[in-house]
Amino acid sequence: MQLFTPTIESIPPKGATYELRAVGPATVRVHLHPLNPLHFVLRTAQVYPDKLAILHPDVKEPVSYSYSVWAQRIQNFAYALIRAGVQPGDRVAVIAPNWYVSQAHHGVIAARAVLCPINTRLTHGEVAYILEHSGAKIIIVDYEFKHLVEGAKVPVIVSNDTGRRGDPYEDFLAAGRQFSNEKGWSGLYWEPDENANAALCYTSGTTGRPKGVMTTLRGSYLAALANAYEAGLTRDSVYLWVLPMFHACGWTYPWSITASMATQITLRSVSNPHIWNHLLNSGVTHYCGAPTVQIGLISAPEARPVPQPVKAIIAGSAPTAQLIGDLETKGITAVHTYGPVTICYPQPAWMKLSLQERARFLARQGRGFITAADIRVVYQPKEGEPIDYDAPLVDVPRDGATIGEVVMRGNITMKEYFRDPEATRKAFRGGYFNSGDLAVMYPDGYIAIQDRSKDIIISGGENASSLAIEQELATHPDVLEVSVVARPHPRWGERPMAFVILRANSKKKWVGKDEEFAAALKKHARGNLPGFACPEWVQLVDELPKTSTGKIQKVQLRKIVAKL
Amino acid sequence: MQLFTPTIESIPPKGATYELRAVGPATVRVHLHPLNPLHFVLRTAQVYPDKLAILHPDVKEPVSYSYSVWAQRIQNFAYALIRAGVQPGDRVAVIAPNWYVSQAHHGVIAARAVLCPINTRLTHGEVAYILEHSGAKIIIVDYEFKHLVEGAKVPVIVSNDTGRRGDPYEDFLAAGRQFSNEKGWSGLYWEPDENANAALCYTSGTTGRPKGVMTTLRGSYLAALANAYEAGLTRDSVYLWVLPMFHACGWTYPWSITASMATQITLRSVSNPHIWNHLLNSGVTHYCGAPTVQIGLISAPEARPVPQPVKAIIAGSAPTAQLIGDLETKGITAVHTYGPVTICYPQPAWMKLSLQERARFLARQGRGFITAADIRVVYQPKEGEPIDYDAPLVDVPRDGATIGEVVMRGNITMKEYFRDPEATRKAFRGGYFNSGDLAVMYPDGYIAIQDRSKDIIISGGENASSLAIEQELATHPDVLEVSVVARPHPRWGERPMAFVILRANSKKKWVGKDEEFAAALKKHARGNLPGFACPEWVQLVDELPKTSTGKIQKVQLRKIVAKL
Repeated sequence: MQLFTPTIESIPPKGATYELRAVGPATVRVHLHPLNPLHFVLRTAQVYPDKLAILHPDVKEPVSYSYSVWAQRIQNFAYALIRAGVQPGDRVAVIAPNWYVSQAHHGVIAARAVLCPINTRLTHGEVAYILEHSGAKIIIVDYEFKHLVEGAKVPVIVSNDTGRRGDPYEDFLAAGRQFSNEKGWSGLYWEPDENANAALCYTSGTTGRPKGVMTTLRGSYLAALANAYEAGLTRDSVYLWVLPMFHACGWTYPWSITASMATQITLRSVSNPHIWNHLLNSGVTHYCGAPTVQIGLISAPEARPVPQPVKAIIAGSAPTAQLIGDLETKGITAVHTYGPVTICYPQPAWMKLSLQERARFLARQGRGFITAADIRVVYQPKEGEPIDYDAPLVDVPRDGATIGEVVMRGNITMKEYFRDPEATRKAFRGGYFNSGDLAVMYPDGYIAIQDRSKDIIISGGENASSLAIEQELATHPDVLEVSVVARPHPRWGERPMAFVILRANSKKKWVGKDEEFAAALKKHARGNLPGFACPEWVQLVDELPKTSTGKIQKVQLRKIVAKL
Repeated sequence: MQLFTPTIESIPPKGATYELRAVGPATVRVHLHPLNPLHFVLRTAQVYPDKLAILHPDVKEPVSYSYSVWAQRIQNFAYALIRAGVQPGDRVAVIAPNWYVSQAHHGVIAARAVLCPINTRLTHGEVAYILEHSGAKIIIVDYEFKHLVEGAKVPVIVSNDTGRRGDPYEDFLAAGRQFSNEKGWSGLYWEPDENANAALCYTSGTTGRPKGVMTTLRGSYLAALANAYEAGLTRDSVYLWVLPMFHACGWTYPWSITASMATQITLRSVSNPHIWNHLLNSGVTHYCGAPTVQIGLISAPEARPVPQPVKAIIAGSAPTAQLIGDLETKGITAVHTYGPVTICYPQPAWMKLSLQERARFLARQGRGFITAADIRVVYQPKEGEPIDYDAPLVDVPRDGATIGEVVMRGNITMKEYFRDPEATRKAFRGGYFNSGDLAVMYPDGYIAIQDRSKDIIISGGENASSLAIEQELATHPDVLEVSVVARPHPRWGERPMAFVILRANSKKKWVGKDEEFAAALKKHARGNLPGFACPEWVQLVDELPKTSTGKIQKVQLRKIVAKL
């Protein structure tokens, strides 16, 4: 792949060394080195200085950097932040396409600051709240999102996405290089506390204010290692960014990719034509995305078999059999993760099953990652009763039926909700992170998410999992995508309502025949679901409301339902 | 592969859980879990309970265990140790074939004790010293090595390598299961301090008393992860034990294998026929061994192309071009590591080179592992001058010529020489572990070991690397294996003397023509080596003295030289 000429400030000096300074004598002991994911990019810059680290191709002025040049830019960024007054522990907000956020994953922690990547699809008010709550000291913003930070009370550095001199972001970096006074990496300090804060990502906040999820350097390091290992990332891998990096630090892949010495490709416009172009022509081996993103991808007119093996890491919700099968026909293997802290490890016995049966197993969220500690499914506190947050948790039976809440702990888990000890205390009930996801546990110890707490449908006193219903409805040959929410029912309290997008090929068959389709889908459901879980209403739609990470926004569907 | 019926005590109870007890409330915090390589085998026992964990086939009574059964045996072992009075931090000595040592890598740390695997080829006196120095509280010994611990003052558990009831070792385990009183894993404690001692391996002590290398749980965990990642071990891997596990905890592979959920095969007799049988018939994908072991392997009459891709992880000394080529013709890929804390990452440019040229690069020890910190080559203290152990170290230039000492630090490095603060202080000069290996550093940052400090040949005032000479002599088509040591010379002080084993096919050509062969080899050397490095003497031998790990014992060759 082509390497473009970087700015002069991005070129490392001859004989550059990659050793950071120690804070006090105890920072690095012979057998104790504080874990820090910055280690990974520095290591790769030394082993493969000329290897393509990152490519940003589909813009007016494409840019790419080798690992040594990229490391220099990361260093420039760190110095630029320090020059701008950023102190250890300060938050640095970034509102930009993945290209910039990727660099910030290394540059911000090289300045011993905390990365706060902000969702580019938020409103001005939501962004203002996060900027205020995080106490960000400086903001890096892409020109397209400048309006989101208007009126900000801290310095704003705008990027024009050119990679060329005269671009304010590039000038900011150039000044960083100048400021370093050629001390290079040895002018920066290695963070002595591996439990120092690393990144602060805000929840989407569909219910109430967004909360700031804080992670540590140690946690990020161990999560990145696990993701690299579990996804099979190696120095021969090419990772395509489909997932927005502001979402949970791109599941720590910005560090997994550098740890495995792989190459990454970022897109300004994450659209199917661009994605397929790179899947087919750029040697892409890995990408991540929620099922809805994958469905869109696989249904795109550009879709065809890929020339090299590709792994699609799927999280956010469970992939359907249809999706797994569709991906397989294109040469893409689905890897189902959750968190990402669990992975659905395939069992040898599943290989003998039909795709349909196998997909039922692959739809489970599985077991903890190589560096994760225990994942449990436990009873939730009884509604209305006072909650003892210190009481030990009680596991649901491993019967594949009893619904409880997924809880987890260990080094991959978040440290706290930033500046919200009350929310942290609630989330950490029983000494575990309470995920809010409802699941069952099977006898083999695999968990299977049933729903978010708020998405469960209470139909005639029975708990119906909207996800389980969706999984079943998605097996209908004419269904491309489906989402199910509760709708009030005079007799049963609630009943499921399904919103369905038809497959392109099936539209002719059903267009204008909404009722006939509804009848056909209900019949299909009755064969496979208990009565209380069968949809009472079916509505055909052209699209479903989605978050920026491709998750269906059930809160929007519920608003539609409320107006019916 | 066949699973044999385990003893009743080795069968886990139905619905076994794998949660250990916490010591105090701070043992496990939501986002902090003490690193411990015990985690790996427990995780795999849950995900793949029925998968073949370990196979011990080539004995009178072959044994194999699934992961769940093996985990139960590990638990039984831990309880048996506790029942025998072993306290947290106590050392447990094991003198046995790999089969037993592998189980002890998990069982001993499950009892929060420290594993002390002892070289089975030591003398009674040497073993007595180690038992005394380590303060081992109990000894597990294989029947074949019983004589080595005669007169020991602590309890000795003998194994008859049967895996059957009535075998004292099996009865010891059975009593452990009894003692657990069915509390299972929840009756044991998770070590709260990740920096607690994990394993104590003694150096071979060719110069003076053996020293005890102590490692920690954290270090072992991170080293095992790195080895699993760098070797490409996955749940589809089958690892064959060629390396003795008492050697540096088998380079931490006992934990790497369980971390990657792979299967391992242990041999009672590590002989070429057995090794080739498994390479050809048991789906082996990985094994480790020093170059001399690999040379023996590849020259064995059983050698033929392997039916599946195999990786040979080589450490101990650098592989020659001949060896790399020979392995490749059998379908075996050489991975050159050192420590194992560095790996020779291949560069794209090398792929265009001839095998001979490529091997010169692959013979370098390379760069630090994914979880290693920095590796340097630094000037040694000047002889005769007082040493300042706290003075900062000074790197040799990156010229591929200046010889210095390899030093390293970081989480993979040892913690200390047990009960020897003076030796630890010396080994940790400048805040790094001083390896005693002499190397050069190339402009690309790759290190290349030249020699052990004591093996360098000072010929006419020049430092001649015995390893570099060996590498060169090994390119002669008739040379199977060669070792070079210094021999006193009246004019030059020292001159190299080469001990050579001929290839089987070349023996006819040279038998009885020792002088002609010496002349031919010297001529070959003169074309490629500086004069001071050319061997002055060449001696044909049938075998070379080797350590149990396959390293050539130059100390023995020097004794021969001294008598000449």
